[in-house]
Order: sequence, then C-alpha cells, then structure tokens
Amino acid sequence: MKNWENNVRRVSPYVPGEQPKDKNIIKLNTNENPYPPSKGVIKILKEYNADSLRLYPDPSSEELVNALADRYGVDPSQIFVGVGSDDVISMAFMTFFNSDKPIIFPDITYSFYDVWADVYNIPFERKPLDNNFRINEKDYLCENGGIIFPNPNAPTGVYESLDKIEKIISYNSDVIVMIDEAYIDFGGESCIPLLKKYDNLLIVQTFSKSRSLAGARIGFAIGNKKLISYLNDVKFSVNSYTINSITQQIGIEAVKDESYFKETTNRIIETRERTKANLKKLGFIFPDSKSNFIFASHKEKPAKAIYEELKKRRIYVRYWDKPRINNFIRITIGTDKEMEKLIYALESILIG
Amino acid sequence: MKNWENNVRRVSPYVPGEQPKDKNIIKLNTNENPYPPSKGVIKILKEYNADSLRLYPDPSSEELVNALADRYGVDPSQIFVGVGSDDVISMAFMTFFNSDKPIIFPDITYSFYDVWADVYNIPFERKPLDNNFRINEKDYLCENGGIIFPNPNAPTGVYESLDKIEKIISYNSDVIVMIDEAYIDFGGESCIPLLKKYDNLLIVQTFSKSRSLAGARIGFAIGNKKLISYLNDVKFSVNSYTINSITQQIGIEAVKDESYFKETTNRIIETRERTKANLKKLGFIFPDSKSNFIFASHKEKPAKAIYEELKKRRIYVRYWDKPRINNFIRITIGTDKEMEKLIYALESILIG
Repeated sequence: MKNWENNVRRVSPYVPGEQPKDKNIIKLNTNENPYPPSKGVIKILKEYNADSLRLYPDPSSEELVNALADRYGVDPSQIFVGVGSDDVISMAFMTFFNSDKPIIFPDITYSFYDVWADVYNIPFERKPLDNNFRINEKDYLCENGGIIFPNPNAPTGVYESLDKIEKIISYNSDVIVMIDEAYIDFGGESCIPLLKKYDNLLIVQTFSKSRSLAGARIGFAIGNKKLISYLNDVKFSVNSYTINSITQQIGIEAVKDESYFKETTNRIIETRERTKANLKKLGFIFPDSKSNFIFASHKEKPAKAIYEELKKRRIYVRYWDKPRINNFIRITIGTDKEMEKLIYALESILIG
Repeated sequence: MKNWENNVRRVSPYVPGEQPKDKNIIKLNTNENPYPPSKGVIKILKEYNADSLRLYPDPSSEELVNALADRYGVDPSQIFVGVGSDDVISMAFMTFFNSDKPIIFPDITYSFYDVWADVYNIPFERKPLDNNFRINEKDYLCENGGIIFPNPNAPTGVYESLDKIEKIISYNSDVIVMIDEAYIDFGGESCIPLLKKYDNLLIVQTFSKSRSLAGARIGFAIGNKKLISYLNDVKFSVNSYTINSITQQIGIEAVKDESYFKETTNRIIETRERTKANLKKLGFIFPDSKSNFIFASHKEKPAKAIYEELKKRRIYVRYWDKPRINNFIRITIGTDKEMEKLIYALESILIG
C-alpha cells in the first residue's frame, strides 16, 4: 500500500441495478416508468438553442423552482432542487445529520441510506419493520440524530398513513425528519400538508418515476424556508452549478403537463392492480403496494431461482441476497404488454 | 433558534459570478467561451430520442469515458467524469484529503478550495504567491495532507512550467497532488505526461471553457487506475447517476471534434494577445496570461471604479474585494468584437 492511501476515504459503494444495453430485454428492475416523458420535453429538445450551452446555467434553477412551487402550492423559498433525489437526500444527510446520536431508519429500506451515513461518518441505527413490513412507530419515539424513511417504503411498496407519520414528526421536533416520497404519486397521500404544522419536516420527491425522467436526473425537496436555505448553503459550497440548462427546461415541461402526469400514473396504478391479481393466482404473496413496483415472494419456489429463470427469459427484476428479503423479487410495473409477458414467463417457470 | 438547528452543518457558501438574464450585456465575468459548442452537439440535441429519458443513464458514462481516454491517450480506467470540474474536485477533496495535516494551496487561487475544505472539515493552509503572483515551490516542500492548485492559476492566469510542478509532485509522494487544469487548453502544457512517473498525481479538466459547454456541466479527472477507482467508490456512494443521458452524448460530440476545438481555442489565444497589447497601451499592467482571461490592474484608476464604470456600460467583468487582489479586474476573453467594445469603453472611462 502506498502512503498516500492513508488519507483515502474508504467506502463500500452502492451497487445500482443493472442497466443492460440490449434493448430487447424487458426491464422491470430499476422502477423506471414504461411511458415516455411529456411531449413538451420532446419539443424542448428539438427546439433547444445549443449555442446557449456555452454559458453557465442558472445556478438557482429559478424557473424550475417556480414551476414546482406553483404545482405544489408552496413558496419558491420552500423548494430545493438537485441532480436526482439521490443528490438531494445525500446533500440533506450532509446538512442536517451532524449529530453524535444515531439517525434512524428501517432495517428494510432504500439501500442508499446506510451508504450515505457511511460516507459522511454519521452514526445510524436500523429499526426492524414488523413481519408485515410495517413501521412500528414506537421505535421512532426515542432520542436520535434524525430520521429518514421512504413512504411508500422501498423495496416493499408499503404505504404508511399520514396519522402515523405525523406522530413521528411531532415527537421528534428537535431533529429533522425526512420523508422520501419517491413513489408517492402512485396512490399514496403526500406529507406536504404537514409542512404548515412542522418546521422539522423535509419531503423529498423525484422526476425519475412518476414523471418518466430517470435519464434527466432531477429531484427536489420541500420544507420550510429556513431548512431549504441551509440546504442551499451546503449545495452552493459543494457545487454551485449542478442541474444543467437543458435539464432545467426539461423539468419545467414535465411539471407543467399535469394531465399527462395523471394519465400515466393512473395507467401504472391500473396495471399494478391487474398484476397483483395475476400474481396472487400464481401463488405469490406480497405486502400491498402503493408504488410502481410489487415486492413478491412465492409460496413454493425460491425468489432467487425465479429471478434467475426470468433473467434467462430476458426479463430483469431485482433481487437482493440480504437477510429477511432474500426470498423476494421486486417487480417494476411496466406496460400492460410487458406485464402479460412477465405473467406468461412466470407461468412457464412455476407450472411448466 | 430551534433545537434541530444544532445538528445543521453551517457553511459560508461560495458566491458565483453574476449570471445576468439580459442578453444585451457583454459578459466577460465568468470565463465562458464566446463561441458556440461543436456542431455535433447541436445535431445530437435535434436528433435525441427523448423517449429514452424514461430510463436511467449509464452510471459509469462508459462511452464518454472511452472518448476521453482516446483523446488523451490513457486507459479508460484512468478517467473519472463528473458534473463539472467543481463536482470532480469536490469529490476528490472528500476522497483524498482525509488527513489531520493541512492541505496546502496558494493564497490567491480559485475561491472554491477553502469552501470545500470548510464543508468537509479539512484543515488547510494558504501559501502566499510572490509579488509576481508566482508559486514559490519551496512552500510546497513540507509536510502536508495534500496539495491543490490550478495551472494556469485562477484568477491570475499565471502558468507554471512542468519542471516546477514536477518538483512539487515528486517531493510529495505520500499525498495526492491535484493540478486543476481548467484553463490549460489556452496555451499551457498539460501535466498528463507526468502520470507515467507519478501515481500521486490527479489532473482535473473541464468542458466549460475550451469546449464551450459551461451550460452542460461536464468535468473530468485523469490519474492512475487505483486513484480513479477510489474516486469512483466515493462518487457511487454519494450519487450513482449524475451525468444525465443527453449530457453524456453532448460530451462525446465535443471531445470528438478536435478541429473545432483547435480552431476556437486558437482564436481565443489570438484575441487574448491582441487584447494584452491594447490593455498595455491604456496603462494596464498584468501578469502574463496563458488562460482565457486577463487579470489586470490600472496604473492610476482603481480597479473597483473601472469595474463599476464598465458595468454601467453593460460590460461585466469580475472584481473581488479581497486582500492583494482588490485592485485587479479579471476580464474574460470574448470575441474580437466584444473586446473592441471593451477597449472602447475603457478608453472612454480612462481618457474620457
């Protein structure tokens, strides 16, 4: 080992789901939206004045922030934008979780939380979900350095009521409670109305799922003005110019097109409900999902074998070889046609 | 103050140069390129398949990395890409500067270095440039936690020879030495050949200046394979998907178009040399610049007054009210026409 390696920050990096280059694969492994983004996005690209790329983008993404503020009925000073919700949450960890007390999150949850805690040297504690993958609210009524969990949770899809979440936020008024609402647009109710009552609440959402823009990298947080201003101070200290000029315009178009947003999210919800019925018939069990995926286990056949068999048939789903969830596969909701092909493949794997 | 504010990371954020929305302003304040990006970039945008934005981008930006490796004659494993060189350097601070010993950089330099040190709690020490704004190499031959400086330096434009830099790299084999080559394409010689001899060297470059893509946000680092792999581990722990799909394609087009790159950088160098002669005639003094800007002081008229007078005439240059440099303005090299207008305005300010 070289001496300079003594000063190197060592981390176990997050391993993202596979992004196969083969276009013939049915890709149900990273919770992408099966529908293209709003037509406004396509128009923006066609008409974009590429010459303007020689200039720096607006570092505050003002127009995008205004569009989001309009859409969510809050003041622009309450909106923070970043390069995907991963950038937003990572920045929020760095900004708000500077405590010697551990931050807390569920044992089964988005697998980036412990990675961020690790990279920023934040102590953390995992609170086990119950056997139905539900949060036990009592676990969160204790001394801590901050709280984060997704609602609906990932990779389970389980949605918790606002009542339950409000109890946690209200008890923990001395720390920041982050609710990661990456999947909220598929049938859950957002915490946004709680912002009027609680100044320690930060809500994070993304354009990657419900707005069909995983490839554009846009995420945002909504919170009280003071919280957002702290977040911006840190962001401007790390990288002033993040969301590039084209991406800011793409985001604005996507936010404005409310009817397309409703149409595509509803279509995904309908497909999800049909898929639930079909999976049940095939002997799958799963917690009820309010997201764009289903976290399913089969009564007889091990999840890993199903995952591998599907892969052979060029259908990618997600599998984690981790305690408590190593008998589950996470299936993203695709188009009706893709889900028919999935069910057909599962029939052949399970029944033969 | 609320209790949750105890856990908040407090920083003094970097203040970027003004980005006025008025298109009639002659903008010589943030070192942007006056020429549009390569025609390939324009074509990519026109033809881009917006539907593909529903999918996550390639997290490793493989094609862009390959294009850069080809251009710079290194292995793809030696290239790291990020959201502008600010993202790359910030990530490198986090990865390589984990020492109790202070990192060192010049007292007059890119104003983000102390901001990053602050945000990541890295001790640092500023070494004064000499009266000609040159690095005194002896200052860097001491125990330290790492070294960073730009070559050419910002905001002075002063270029140091590879011999001098090699002495610093070679003495400091136990720490990482980062050379920030944001402005290297305007007449300096890159450190890239030194990579064959030194494994503690990290070179950072950007698409924002010489490739006319400040608005796209692409930066990159070149170093030995091991160094780049540590950097990627940290990057994947902070945000796996950063450079979005469109931007990766834009970058590839810009790297490939070597003839346009040469044409525009040469044009800027020629304009710079003419501007130097004109500024001298008007009584300005300045260190010789090998970058796309000139850092100039007037023999009689205070810099701040010149800056303000130019602003009234809708010409923006950069001014810092900081020790040692508060009698200088930094003038970005624009088109010949823009520089003629600048000289004309300066004549009217200085001569009347």
